[in-house]
Amino acid sequence: MTNLEPARSREQRIHDVRERLEKDVDVWVSTASADGGPVLVPLSFVWDDGALIMSTKRVNATARNLTPGGPVMLSLGHTRDVVLIEATTTVIEGTELPTASADAFARQAGFDPRDREAWIYLRAVPQVIRTWREENELAGRVVMRDGAWLG
Amino acid sequence: MTNLEPARSREQRIHDVRERLEKDVDVWVSTASADGGPVLVPLSFVWDDGALIMSTKRVNATARNLTPGGPVMLSLGHTRDVVLIEATTTVIEGTELPTASADAFARQAGFDPRDREAWIYLRAVPQVIRTWREENELAGRVVMRDGAWLG
Repeated sequence: MTNLEPARSREQRIHDVRERLEKDVDVWVSTASADGGPVLVPLSFVWDDGALIMSTKRVNATARNLTPGGPVMLSLGHTRDVVLIEATTTVIEGTELPTASADAFARQAGFDPRDREAWIYLRAVPQVIRTWREENELAGRVVMRDGAWLG
Repeated sequence: MTNLEPARSREQRIHDVRERLEKDVDVWVSTASADGGPVLVPLSFVWDDGALIMSTKRVNATARNLTPGGPVMLSLGHTRDVVLIEATTTVIEGTELPTASADAFARQAGFDPRDREAWIYLRAVPQVIRTWREENELAGRVVMRDGAWLG
């Protein structure tokens, strides 16, 4: 906790979060089963029209926990550059995602779930986003609430 | 998915996981509430006598979800160097953790929960550990089962 960078402004944090959403390729996905079992997996994602589009096999616990929809917590990787997202997620069949979104996912992820009957998409729309690097950024860490970037 | 390193042997993976457990300082902690709400937070940890020792405020959702004990999923950070841990966790009052363990936590985390009435320890004992870097390492990713390193 020495040599801390100064805490970033809200404007800077929103800029940085948007950049991570555009450029990052993987996200940690935390869900819960109906009986309170935690499930944590890494998935590829693409940031598309205000949502993270991911894909997994429909039999996987993550997909089961989110069918037909449900809460998810997402993290963009680093524990010292935290982007922590509460989102509401819906399951979308491979054939039902708009073509532009499916194409974007295929380009970024390197595979195309439309070719894989056993796979579905998850579309997660962020509701709350918190972002911080070190302890001095805990104040002001909320940059999105109720799905809206804080102005 | 090009220019992949060769898949590591089980022996090498166990060596690498042990090294991450010894040297890493933060871990993603995924829990679930009784009604199926996911909770994901980063916590500091120290690897002590076969367990990850963490600490958080007793009123936080993570602590509530794990009181008096319960399942947790832990991830050591990187999505392209995955160490994913299923563990059973117990809550330990600050005064009841062995002194050597509490000292180790304080040294590593930079703060001492024994001084903070509102904080408790979480002691997570790994039961299953999966580790992989890229797709070519998905086979053979289980390196611990039932709490025992696979020989």
